[in-house]
Amino acid sequence: MYLSYFGIRVRDPVRAARFYTEVFGLKVVTPDDWRTPPGEEARVVLLRDPESGQRLELNYYPAASPYGTAYVPGEELDHLAFHVDHLDALLKTLEGWGLRPEAMKHYEGPIHDAPGYRVAYVRDPDGVQLELFETVRGEAPKFRDEKY
Amino acid sequence: MYLSYFGIRVRDPVRAARFYTEVFGLKVVTPDDWRTPPGEEARVVLLRDPESGQRLELNYYPAASPYGTAYVPGEELDHLAFHVDHLDALLKTLEGWGLRPEAMKHYEGPIHDAPGYRVAYVRDPDGVQLELFETVRGEAPKFRDEKY
Repeated sequence: MYLSYFGIRVRDPVRAARFYTEVFGLKVVTPDDWRTPPGEEARVVLLRDPESGQRLELNYYPAASPYGTAYVPGEELDHLAFHVDHLDALLKTLEGWGLRPEAMKHYEGPIHDAPGYRVAYVRDPDGVQLELFETVRGEAPKFRDEKY
Repeated sequence: MYLSYFGIRVRDPVRAARFYTEVFGLKVVTPDDWRTPPGEEARVVLLRDPESGQRLELNYYPAASPYGTAYVPGEELDHLAFHVDHLDALLKTLEGWGLRPEAMKHYEGPIHDAPGYRVAYVRDPDGVQLELFETVRGEAPKFRDEKY
Protein backbone atom coordinates (compact mmCIF):
# COMPACT_ATOMS: atom_id res chain seq x y z
CA MET A 1 0.00 0.00 0.00
CA TYR A 2 1.29 3.45 -0.74
CA LEU A 3 0.27 7.06 -1.01
CA SER A 4 0.08 7.52 -4.75
CA TYR A 5 -0.69 11.19 -5.45
CA PHE A 6 -2.47 14.35 -4.31
CA GLY A 7 -5.41 15.62 -6.32
CA ILE A 8 -6.48 19.23 -6.47
CA ARG A 9 -9.52 20.51 -8.31
CA VAL A 10 -8.94 23.01 -11.11
CA ARG A 11 -11.26 25.14 -13.20
CA ASP A 12 -9.20 25.14 -16.39
CA PRO A 13 -7.09 22.01 -16.80
CA VAL A 14 -4.98 23.37 -19.66
CA ARG A 15 -4.14 26.54 -17.76
CA ALA A 16 -3.36 24.59 -14.59
CA ALA A 17 -1.18 22.04 -16.37
CA ARG A 18 0.70 24.81 -18.19
CA PHE A 19 1.22 26.62 -14.92
CA TYR A 20 2.76 23.68 -13.09
CA THR A 21 4.83 22.46 -16.02
CA GLU A 22 6.10 25.82 -17.30
CA VAL A 23 6.67 27.55 -13.98
CA PHE A 24 7.66 24.67 -11.72
CA GLY A 25 9.03 22.06 -14.13
CA LEU A 26 6.57 19.29 -13.35
CA LYS A 27 6.11 16.73 -16.12
CA VAL A 28 2.82 15.41 -17.46
CA VAL A 29 2.55 11.68 -16.86
CA THR A 30 -0.76 11.46 -18.68
CA PRO A 31 -2.69 12.13 -20.87
CA ASP A 32 -0.70 12.96 -23.99
CA ASP A 33 -3.34 15.37 -25.28
CA TRP A 34 -3.53 17.53 -22.16
CA ARG A 35 -3.11 20.70 -24.26
CA THR A 36 -6.46 20.10 -26.00
CA PRO A 37 -9.22 22.26 -24.52
CA PRO A 38 -11.59 20.05 -22.54
CA GLY A 39 -15.08 19.37 -23.84
CA GLU A 40 -18.02 17.96 -21.95
CA GLU A 41 -15.95 15.32 -20.23
CA ALA A 42 -14.17 15.43 -16.91
CA ARG A 43 -10.40 15.44 -17.27
CA VAL A 44 -7.58 14.19 -15.13
CA VAL A 45 -3.98 15.33 -15.66
CA LEU A 46 -1.35 13.55 -13.62
CA LEU A 47 1.90 15.44 -13.06
CA ARG A 48 5.16 14.35 -11.48
CA ASP A 49 8.10 16.30 -10.21
CA PRO A 50 11.15 14.73 -11.89
CA GLU A 51 13.45 15.62 -9.00
CA SER A 52 11.42 14.85 -5.87
CA GLY A 53 8.99 12.34 -7.39
CA GLN A 54 5.99 14.07 -5.80
CA ARG A 55 2.84 13.52 -7.85
CA LEU A 56 0.07 16.07 -8.33
CA GLU A 57 -3.20 15.27 -10.06
CA LEU A 58 -5.32 18.01 -11.59
CA ASN A 59 -9.02 17.18 -11.51
CA TYR A 60 -11.39 19.02 -13.81
CA TYR A 61 -15.17 18.61 -13.76
CA PRO A 62 -17.31 20.44 -16.33
CA ALA A 63 -20.55 21.98 -15.12
CA ALA A 64 -22.53 19.07 -16.60
CA SER A 65 -20.58 16.51 -14.53
CA PRO A 66 -22.10 15.18 -11.30
CA TYR A 67 -19.00 16.64 -9.63
CA GLY A 68 -19.22 19.99 -11.37
CA THR A 69 -20.33 21.80 -8.24
CA ALA A 70 -19.42 25.40 -7.47
CA TYR A 71 -15.72 25.90 -6.78
CA VAL A 72 -15.71 26.91 -3.13
CA PRO A 73 -12.39 27.80 -1.50
CA GLY A 74 -12.01 25.88 1.74
CA GLU A 75 -9.56 25.12 4.49
CA GLU A 76 -8.77 21.43 3.95
CA LEU A 77 -5.94 22.07 1.53
CA ASP A 78 -3.45 24.18 3.40
CA HIS A 79 -0.74 24.64 0.80
CA LEU A 80 1.63 22.99 -1.65
CA ALA A 81 5.29 23.63 -0.92
CA PHE A 82 8.06 24.12 -3.44
CA HIS A 83 11.72 24.24 -2.63
CA VAL A 84 13.08 27.06 -4.75
CA ASP A 85 16.61 27.82 -5.88
CA HIS A 86 16.11 31.47 -6.83
CA LEU A 87 13.08 33.02 -5.20
CA ASP A 88 13.40 36.45 -6.79
CA ALA A 89 13.65 35.03 -10.30
CA LEU A 90 10.63 32.81 -9.68
CA LEU A 91 8.58 35.72 -8.37
CA LYS A 92 9.38 37.57 -11.57
CA THR A 93 8.13 34.63 -13.61
CA LEU A 94 4.95 34.51 -11.53
CA GLU A 95 4.37 38.20 -12.12
CA GLY A 96 4.07 37.29 -15.78
CA TRP A 97 1.13 35.12 -14.74
CA GLY A 98 -0.39 38.03 -12.85
CA LEU A 99 0.47 36.46 -9.51
CA ARG A 100 2.09 38.31 -6.63
CA PRO A 101 3.12 37.20 -3.15
CA GLU A 102 0.56 37.67 -0.43
CA ALA A 103 1.13 39.55 2.78
CA MET A 104 1.10 37.02 5.61
CA LYS A 105 -0.28 37.49 9.09
CA HIS A 106 2.81 36.43 10.99
CA TYR A 107 5.44 38.61 9.39
CA GLU A 108 5.72 41.88 7.56
CA GLY A 109 5.91 42.31 3.84
CA PRO A 110 5.41 39.79 1.07
CA ILE A 111 8.78 38.07 1.48
CA HIS A 112 9.95 36.73 4.79
CA ASP A 113 13.73 36.82 5.32
CA ALA A 114 14.63 34.55 8.21
CA PRO A 115 17.96 33.15 9.36
CA GLY A 116 18.78 30.41 6.90
CA TYR A 117 15.81 30.78 4.58
CA ARG A 118 13.50 33.09 2.69
CA VAL A 119 9.86 32.29 2.03
CA ALA A 120 6.94 33.79 0.12
CA TYR A 121 3.37 32.66 -0.49
CA VAL A 122 1.59 32.97 -3.83
CA ARG A 123 -1.81 31.65 -4.91
CA ASP A 124 -1.97 29.60 -8.09
CA PRO A 125 -4.51 30.50 -10.82
CA ASP A 126 -7.18 28.49 -8.95
CA GLY A 127 -6.46 30.07 -5.59
CA VAL A 128 -4.36 27.27 -4.11
CA GLN A 129 -1.73 28.60 -1.74
CA LEU A 130 1.86 27.83 -2.73
CA GLU A 131 4.76 28.12 -0.33
CA LEU A 132 8.00 29.09 -2.07
CA PHE A 133 10.89 28.24 0.16
CA GLU A 134 14.48 29.22 -0.58
CA THR A 135 17.36 28.06 1.57
CA VAL A 136 20.08 30.59 2.01
CA ARG A 137 23.35 29.04 0.99
CA GLY A 138 25.76 28.17 3.74
CA GLU A 139 23.08 28.12 6.42
CA ALA A 140 21.84 24.98 8.10
CA PRO A 141 18.62 23.84 6.46
CA LYS A 142 15.43 23.66 8.44
CA PHE A 143 13.91 20.20 8.71
CA ARG A 144 11.24 20.95 6.18
CA ASP A 145 13.83 21.81 3.65
CA GLU A 146 15.57 18.48 3.84
CA LYS A 147 15.73 16.48 0.69
CA TYR A 148 12.64 14.33 0.10
CA MET B 1 13.50 23.56 -7.64
CA TYR B 2 11.19 20.80 -6.64
CA LEU B 3 7.73 20.11 -5.30
CA SER B 4 8.49 19.26 -1.69
CA TYR B 5 5.23 18.23 0.00
CA PHE B 6 1.48 18.69 0.20
CA GLY B 7 0.00 20.31 3.28
CA ILE B 8 -3.50 19.69 4.56
CA ARG B 9 -5.07 21.41 7.52
CA VAL B 10 -6.14 19.23 10.43
CA ARG B 11 -8.14 19.93 13.57
CA ASP B 12 -6.38 17.44 15.83
CA PRO B 13 -2.75 16.83 14.84
CA VAL B 14 -2.29 13.78 17.07
CA ARG B 15 -5.41 12.09 15.72
CA ALA B 16 -4.46 12.92 12.14
CA ALA B 17 -0.88 11.69 12.53
CA ARG B 18 -2.07 8.48 14.19
CA PHE B 19 -4.56 7.96 11.37
CA TYR B 20 -2.02 8.25 8.56
CA THR B 21 0.72 6.31 10.33
CA GLU B 22 -1.38 3.51 11.80
CA VAL B 23 -3.79 2.97 8.93
CA PHE B 24 -1.65 3.81 5.91
CA GLY B 25 1.90 3.20 7.12
CA LEU B 26 3.23 6.72 6.60
CA LYS B 27 6.24 7.61 8.75
CA VAL B 28 6.70 10.78 10.79
CA VAL B 29 9.68 12.75 9.52
CA THR B 30 9.31 15.38 12.24
CA PRO B 31 8.78 16.31 15.04
CA ASP B 32 9.76 13.53 17.44
CA ASP B 33 7.15 14.55 20.00
CA TRP B 34 4.17 14.45 17.65
CA ARG B 35 2.20 12.30 20.12
CA THR B 36 2.15 15.12 22.70
CA PRO B 37 -1.21 16.94 22.69
CA PRO B 38 -0.73 20.39 21.18
CA GLY B 39 -0.92 23.45 23.36
CA GLU B 40 -1.33 27.05 22.28
CA GLU B 41 1.16 26.73 19.47
CA ALA B 42 0.60 25.83 15.85
CA ARG B 43 2.01 22.43 14.95
CA VAL B 44 3.39 20.95 11.78
CA VAL B 45 3.79 17.19 11.34
CA LEU B 46 5.61 16.07 8.22
CA LEU B 47 4.89 12.52 7.05
CA ARG B 48 6.47 10.46 4.29
CA ASP B 49 5.34 7.30 2.59
CA PRO B 50 8.34 4.95 2.78
CA GLU B 51 7.41 3.17 -0.44
CA SER B 52 6.35 5.94 -2.80
CA GLY B 53 8.22 8.81 -1.16
CA GLN B 54 5.13 11.05 -1.27
CA ARG B 55 5.19 13.62 1.53
CA LEU B 56 2.15 14.87 3.43
CA GLU B 57 2.29 17.72 5.92
CA LEU B 58 -0.35 18.08 8.62
CA ASN B 59 -0.92 21.70 9.58
CA TYR B 60 -2.60 22.52 12.87
CA TYR B 61 -3.58 26.02 13.98
CA PRO B 62 -5.10 26.57 17.41
CA ALA B 63 -7.97 29.02 17.71
CA ALA B 64 -5.61 31.67 19.09
CA SER B 65 -3.36 31.51 16.01
CA PRO B 66 -3.78 34.10 13.24
CA TYR B 67 -4.54 31.12 10.98
CA GLY B 68 -7.00 29.47 13.38
CA THR B 69 -10.00 30.36 11.27
CA ALA B 70 -13.09 28.16 11.05
CA TYR B 71 -12.45 24.86 9.30
CA VAL B 72 -14.55 25.20 6.15
CA PRO B 73 -14.71 22.27 3.74
CA GLY B 74 -13.96 23.45 0.23
CA GLU B 75 -13.33 22.21 -3.25
CA GLU B 76 -9.65 22.98 -3.80
CA LEU B 77 -8.44 19.70 -2.38
CA ASP B 78 -10.05 17.03 -4.47
CA HIS B 79 -8.65 13.89 -2.87
CA LEU B 80 -5.58 11.99 -1.73
CA ALA B 81 -5.11 8.65 -3.48
CA PHE B 82 -3.75 5.47 -1.96
CA HIS B 83 -2.85 2.37 -3.89
CA VAL B 84 -4.16 -0.47 -1.78
CA ASP B 85 -3.25 -4.16 -1.73
CA HIS B 86 -6.31 -5.46 0.10
CA LEU B 87 -9.27 -3.12 -0.07
CA ASP B 88 -11.65 -5.20 2.02
CA ALA B 89 -9.17 -5.57 4.87
CA LEU B 90 -8.45 -1.84 4.80
CA LEU B 91 -12.16 -0.98 4.90
CA LYS B 92 -12.47 -3.16 7.98
CA THR B 93 -9.63 -1.24 9.64
CA LEU B 94 -11.30 2.05 8.74
CA GLU B 95 -14.57 0.85 10.27
CA GLY B 96 -12.65 0.72 13.54
CA TRP B 97 -12.10 4.46 13.09
CA GLY B 98 -15.82 4.94 12.46
CA LEU B 99 -15.24 5.58 8.77
CA ARG B 100 -17.25 3.97 5.98
CA PRO B 101 -17.06 4.28 2.20
CA GLU B 102 -19.26 6.93 0.64
CA ALA B 103 -21.78 6.30 -2.09
CA MET B 104 -20.50 8.01 -5.22
CA LYS B 105 -22.54 9.75 -7.88
CA HIS B 106 -21.17 7.91 -10.88
CA TYR B 107 -21.64 4.32 -9.80
CA GLU B 108 -23.82 2.28 -7.50
CA GLY B 109 -22.86 1.14 -4.05
CA PRO B 110 -19.91 2.09 -1.87
CA ILE B 111 -17.36 -0.05 -3.73
CA HIS B 112 -16.89 0.19 -7.45
CA ASP B 113 -15.84 -3.06 -9.13
CA ALA B 114 -14.49 -2.29 -12.59
CA PRO B 115 -12.48 -4.37 -15.04
CA GLY B 116 -8.97 -4.42 -13.63
CA TYR B 117 -9.56 -2.47 -10.45
CA ARG B 118 -11.77 -1.82 -7.45
CA VAL B 119 -12.12 1.58 -5.83
CA ALA B 120 -13.82 3.09 -2.80
CA TYR B 121 -13.86 6.59 -1.30
CA VAL B 122 -13.64 7.29 2.42
CA ARG B 123 -13.29 10.60 4.25
CA ASP B 124 -10.50 10.93 6.79
CA PRO B 125 -11.29 12.21 10.32
CA ASP B 126 -11.06 15.81 9.06
CA GLY B 127 -13.30 15.23 6.05
CA VAL B 128 -10.60 14.91 3.40
CA GLN B 129 -11.64 12.52 0.65
CA LEU B 130 -9.39 9.49 0.22
CA GLU B 131 -9.44 7.34 -2.88
CA LEU B 132 -8.59 3.70 -2.14
CA PHE B 133 -7.59 2.00 -5.34
CA GLU B 134 -6.96 -1.73 -5.61
CA THR B 135 -5.66 -3.30 -8.78
CA VAL B 136 -7.09 -6.70 -9.53
CA ARG B 137 -4.25 -9.14 -9.98
CA GLY B 138 -3.56 -10.29 -13.50
CA GLU B 139 -5.33 -7.35 -15.08
CA ALA B 140 -3.56 -4.55 -16.90
CA PRO B 141 -3.11 -1.56 -14.58
CA LYS B 142 -4.73 1.74 -15.41
CA PHE B 143 -2.33 4.61 -15.90
CA ARG B 144 -3.07 6.08 -12.53
CA ASP B 145 -2.08 2.89 -10.87
CA GLU B 146 1.38 2.85 -12.34
CA LYS B 147 4.25 2.89 -9.93
CA TYR B 148 5.25 6.35 -8.87
